[in-house]
Amino acid sequence: MTGSTFGKLLRITTWGESHGKAIGAVVDGCPSCIELSEKDIQKDLDRRKPGQSSITTQRKEQDIVEILSGTFNGKTTGAPISLVIKNKDADSSKYEKIKHLFRPGHADFTFQKKYNIRDYRGGGRSSARETAARVAAGTIAKKIIHNINPNVKFIAHALKIGDVTAEKLNFSEIEKNKARCADKAAAKKMEELILSSKQKGDSIGGIVGLIIKNCPVGLGDPVFDKLDADLAKALISIGAVKGIEIGAGFNCAKMKGSESNDYITTQGFASNNSGGILGGISTGQDIVIRIAVKPTPSISQEQSTIDLAGKAQKICIEGRHDPCIVPRIIPIAEAMAALVIADKMLIQRCIER
Amino acid sequence: MTGSTFGKLLRITTWGESHGKAIGAVVDGCPSCIELSEKDIQKDLDRRKPGQSSITTQRKEQDIVEILSGTFNGKTTGAPISLVIKNKDADSSKYEKIKHLFRPGHADFTFQKKYNIRDYRGGGRSSARETAARVAAGTIAKKIIHNINPNVKFIAHALKIGDVTAEKLNFSEIEKNKARCADKAAAKKMEELILSSKQKGDSIGGIVGLIIKNCPVGLGDPVFDKLDADLAKALISIGAVKGIEIGAGFNCAKMKGSESNDYITTQGFASNNSGGILGGISTGQDIVIRIAVKPTPSISQEQSTIDLAGKAQKICIEGRHDPCIVPRIIPIAEAMAALVIADKMLIQRCIER
Amino acid sequence: MTGSTFGKLLRITTWGESHGKAIGAVVDGCPSCIELSEKDIQKDLDRRKPGQSSITTQRKEQDIVEILSGTFNGKTTGAPISLVIKNKDADSSKYEKIKHLFRPGHADFTFQKKYNIRDYRGGGRSSARETAARVAAGTIAKKIIHNINPNVKFIAHALKIGDVTAEKLNFSEIEKNKARCADKAAAKKMEELILSSKQKGDSIGGIVGLIIKNCPVGLGDPVFDKLDADLAKALISIGAVKGIEIGAGFNCAKMKGSESNDYITTQGFASNNSGGILGGISTGQDIVIRIAVKPTPSISQEQSTIDLAGKAQKICIEGRHDPCIVPRIIPIAEAMAALVIADKMLIQRCIER
Amino acid sequence: MTGSTFGKLLRITTWGESHGKAIGAVVDGCPSCIELSEKDIQKDLDRRKPGQSSITTQRKEQDIVEILSGTFNGKTTGAPISLVIKNKDADSSKYEKIKHLFRPGHADFTFQKKYNIRDYRGGGRSSARETAARVAAGTIAKKIIHNINPNVKFIAHALKIGDVTAEKLNFSEIEKNKARCADKAAAKKMEELILSSKQKGDSIGGIVGLIIKNCPVGLGDPVFDKLDADLAKALISIGAVKGIEIGAGFNCAKMKGSESNDYITTQGFASNNSGGILGGISTGQDIVIRIAVKPTPSISQEQSTIDLAGKAQKICIEGRHDPCIVPRIIPIAEAMAALVIADKMLIQRCIER
Repeated sequence: MTGSTFGKLLRITTWGESHGKAIGAVVDGCPSCIELSEKDIQKDLDRRKPGQSSITTQRKEQDIVEILSGTFNGKTTGAPISLVIKNKDADSSKYEKIKHLFRPGHADFTFQKKYNIRDYRGGGRSSARETAARVAAGTIAKKIIHNINPNVKFIAHALKIGDVTAEKLNFSEIEKNKARCADKAAAKKMEELILSSKQKGDSIGGIVGLIIKNCPVGLGDPVFDKLDADLAKALISIGAVKGIEIGAGFNCAKMKGSESNDYITTQGFASNNSGGILGGISTGQDIVIRIAVKPTPSISQEQSTIDLAGKAQKICIEGRHDPCIVPRIIPIAEAMAALVIADKMLIQRCIER
Repeated sequence: MTGSTFGKLLRITTWGESHGKAIGAVVDGCPSCIELSEKDIQKDLDRRKPGQSSITTQRKEQDIVEILSGTFNGKTTGAPISLVIKNKDADSSKYEKIKHLFRPGHADFTFQKKYNIRDYRGGGRSSARETAARVAAGTIAKKIIHNINPNVKFIAHALKIGDVTAEKLNFSEIEKNKARCADKAAAKKMEELILSSKQKGDSIGGIVGLIIKNCPVGLGDPVFDKLDADLAKALISIGAVKGIEIGAGFNCAKMKGSESNDYITTQGFASNNSGGILGGISTGQDIVIRIAVKPTPSISQEQSTIDLAGKAQKICIEGRHDPCIVPRIIPIAEAMAALVIADKMLIQRCIER
Repeated sequence: MTGSTFGKLLRITTWGESHGKAIGAVVDGCPSCIELSEKDIQKDLDRRKPGQSSITTQRKEQDIVEILSGTFNGKTTGAPISLVIKNKDADSSKYEKIKHLFRPGHADFTFQKKYNIRDYRGGGRSSARETAARVAAGTIAKKIIHNINPNVKFIAHALKIGDVTAEKLNFSEIEKNKARCADKAAAKKMEELILSSKQKGDSIGGIVGLIIKNCPVGLGDPVFDKLDADLAKALISIGAVKGIEIGAGFNCAKMKGSESNDYITTQGFASNNSGGILGGISTGQDIVIRIAVKPTPSISQEQSTIDLAGKAQKICIEGRHDPCIVPRIIPIAEAMAALVIADKMLIQRCIER
Repeated sequence: MTGSTFGKLLRITTWGESHGKAIGAVVDGCPSCIELSEKDIQKDLDRRKPGQSSITTQRKEQDIVEILSGTFNGKTTGAPISLVIKNKDADSSKYEKIKHLFRPGHADFTFQKKYNIRDYRGGGRSSARETAARVAAGTIAKKIIHNINPNVKFIAHALKIGDVTAEKLNFSEIEKNKARCADKAAAKKMEELILSSKQKGDSIGGIVGLIIKNCPVGLGDPVFDKLDADLAKALISIGAVKGIEIGAGFNCAKMKGSESNDYITTQGFASNNSGGILGGISTGQDIVIRIAVKPTPSISQEQSTIDLAGKAQKICIEGRHDPCIVPRIIPIAEAMAALVIADKMLIQRCIER
């Protein structure tokens, strides 16, 4: 597999299967003397955990994090921080029945082909459950960032679900509605759409907006480890993400240079088509990103598939699945962005002096 | 800077500034006994070089590659391959006049802020010229791939320029028109649009389609080094790319799970909304990607900016610039995709036995 | 800290402090479908654990390993393998008394200076306890190796302790005596010497011999990731190791080329001064290494030191410490060598086809 | 091959064969605004170049370095620095005659077995000529170090050649004699011994002493990227090095803890058996290292070997070879140590604030 580690100076390694004993992460490269407690991490984990509302999965996983190493007297020591979340609400019986089938839209087929073995219980390693470890690590990344610059903020929100688009963004609304949408009116419609999808045994996709506010100028390492390139890798590595745009993004296609260039004034840039990144380096403006999220592949409607022997089969996926991934992917997107920014900030310290 | 190397087992390190003595790449990790000549590489470089047609820059750079190491008697030896392309047509005088100004849409501002020094001649390190080294390395990647599986093909093409979209794709058309569009009729309109932009002293954006045909099943390394994540990083690391989609991409937002899931039949997948990647691992289908390309920031129209001292200024960028980057970015996108696939294929050999 | 990961394709990340909740390792990059159980690992851990004999520390740590991820139905899945060993016999009270003092020969001083914070309980992160995680990971490395080539063997033994040198090596003797010496007669003298050191409240150093038998030809990646270079890094990264020799080693200084060159015959090399490595690549002969092990720094004799405030102090280290590290470092040296060889074998698969 | 890059934040990638067109290095991660000229590098290269004295090879290679990128107006820009040294005095004819033979003590056999192809001219990639690129990169490392801390010094010297040992070290003597020995009287004997070896068509080994003075406390990244572990890898990766000791090194074997522990006083450490490194982190004392250097394998005496077909053969190696590698390996050892220290210093900046 050999792809379970992310980052250069701040390095996160995640491990664990959905229905195994536990999942977790090792965070290496965290500077010492930063205050860190399980409570800090738990707060972020609670934003990701299942069963938060009527529009997310009804599974009840408490997702209690335990710090096994790397802190002493409430502070980081510079040693690797081992985070563990035990798996509790794991009912594998539903997976026993479909263990010979490849669920459409899932990684069952590719994992089987790649590894010739597959922990089919709850999706095993390819389960979204793995992202709990990312969120936990993300808290540490944010701690590192705020230790250097307390103004940096990560704001992700439901920009679009199905055909409902957030129009008037008011970030203080985000955590007040189940959809995590910054537009109160749109949020209501999103919730309705998600519930209606659920009732039909179907699911729905969406777009997450991600803004990094007060990101210092100068982060990013051309020509390959550009800030946008590393953010793209980080965000696309989240399951279900099928696209990413920075700034004007795909809109660029129809723009002229005289429109897309952000003119520079004595007060700063006159616009932000660049999305806060030029030449792979942060400009000091807001970093503006959108990611495309596919509909949950686990739906209860009957689908065509094949079995391990290659024979045609039908499959209906039981269980309590999110009818829309957008609300729960939001803290994950923030965590991945924080891991990138923290790493780049640490790297940048080498240059700034 | 520390971000000039890409890849895990097959590693490319590029170097060089636009108007410096030369640019180049070191390709490490190439297996031995693969036939390789400068002629092989030159063919790909010629597809990228400036001055190919009336719709690209009129600069005449020959971009002659020289292999300085790593081959013996026409074959690779397993040692690092050093590729050098001397800079010849470098007229820096136009840059002397604007060396104190930050060109809008360029990396001048961010490089200055990050490094406190900037080789302003031709954009220095942030020049698109750097990508010639990537194209040269891409040839080697393709050689490695074809040595393992001769059927893998990389096809990039102009899917959209401005408001002109390719509708009927016929890949054999691509190299027959200046826009590198697979739709002959659309190609003509694209060329007209590009020329018209040029005449107005402006530039135009677009979308590049990228297809990897016959990619074997099983490539990609969850959970961070997923195939789509690494392709995203590779492609977004190309200057001017502001977005990437895989498969259904941003269209996912409005899809239901029952639509976006690719059902599996005894003949294979019934559709390809996944874009050939599930759970970060190739499915064996075509890998289908689109990248958003911003309009060339170098335009001759007057633009507002500031100078090194922070004072408001006007700038008109002289010189011979591509009015649209799409046609020339096509071989670069193929090269970056090939570097990812070759690396993943080498990694995969460890698992397959 | 950012240095807790080792390896390229097979990657081990260790974490944990001596008196924290647990220690552990994440092993990423293990190929799938290899049989692996906790019992396999426990066997190696038992060779390292404290309290095995009268000449090792009398602490009783059971060091029970638990596999938290990466296996399914007794086989590896290709996913990262998380190994945890809970800390049980941790009595930190003795460390409370000396927490303001830097123990001579220990890393107390340098950890405090580097991190400005220090988990002083049992040495924290710099404790030899961390190596239990390496031994556990080493079992997986050996499994990978034996899956590729069942004949490769790692044999470490006490070559020298104090002034007692093993003369007649009989490897079947190693596990039969407390010193882990291949020379029965020398073993007895070594044991006496160690016990006599212990009685004086002192400790004693030694040399470990390490032989890798049946290592295939061709492993190692010039010019930096040479086999000997990576073995040196792996072995010197074990605490207490102060030197390494390959083949003729320091003896080379007095040799002539006509003596040190290993002539090649139709039956193979006529000698093995190279220690089985030429140009950083394995020759197919035995790999022959010696490592220098310093005396345990924890001694009960009174020593001079300073405290956190820089004031002169005296220190007597209580507790149950190994009077000689050599017998217990032996399984650790084997584990580190196995991690290198497994990684190189996986890398080599890319080239061999 | 995939092993041609060294370092984490400061990364050097070397390339080139002994009788190819050129050799070189790309140095990535150098901070910007450091003064750097070809002259700076040339000074170090001249200390390594062949033909300096009667006791080194009589080949005349000028080894003129050219900087192709990464500097502007005499200063580094943060971009990768490409260094090229053209090969000039390459007479490959002597190698044509022995191209089917494996030279004993050389990497011919292992390169052939690993890669199935071999650039036999002058040893190809395994030639000591590759180290010129390391020396050139080392100059940049020293520049980075001195920019941070101008007092750090790297002093390597001939500690032992054959049975002649330097007794009274006076570092100002080193560059005054051909052996690069700090003991004037021993230097004379070393020179005689080397010349006498040469006259017999033989060669002689030795030990290089390496001291890093004024190294700041706190460098090194446990538990794998310890300062001693990375120095060991760096130095053993130099061809012909067969062993390394830090501080008391192999002498540890016979020491007691009460002898080897460096007591700490209000004036600092009372001794330096640790060699300036405790727990993998620099103590602030001198870092004291010794490396074992094997005799030059190229000797003119007749040796037994086999050919490509496995048939027994005799070989006499003609040409102008160093009868002792020690004098010329000295600047290389300093360069490799500087690359490690510079990298660690850059990493340390992340922690210190």
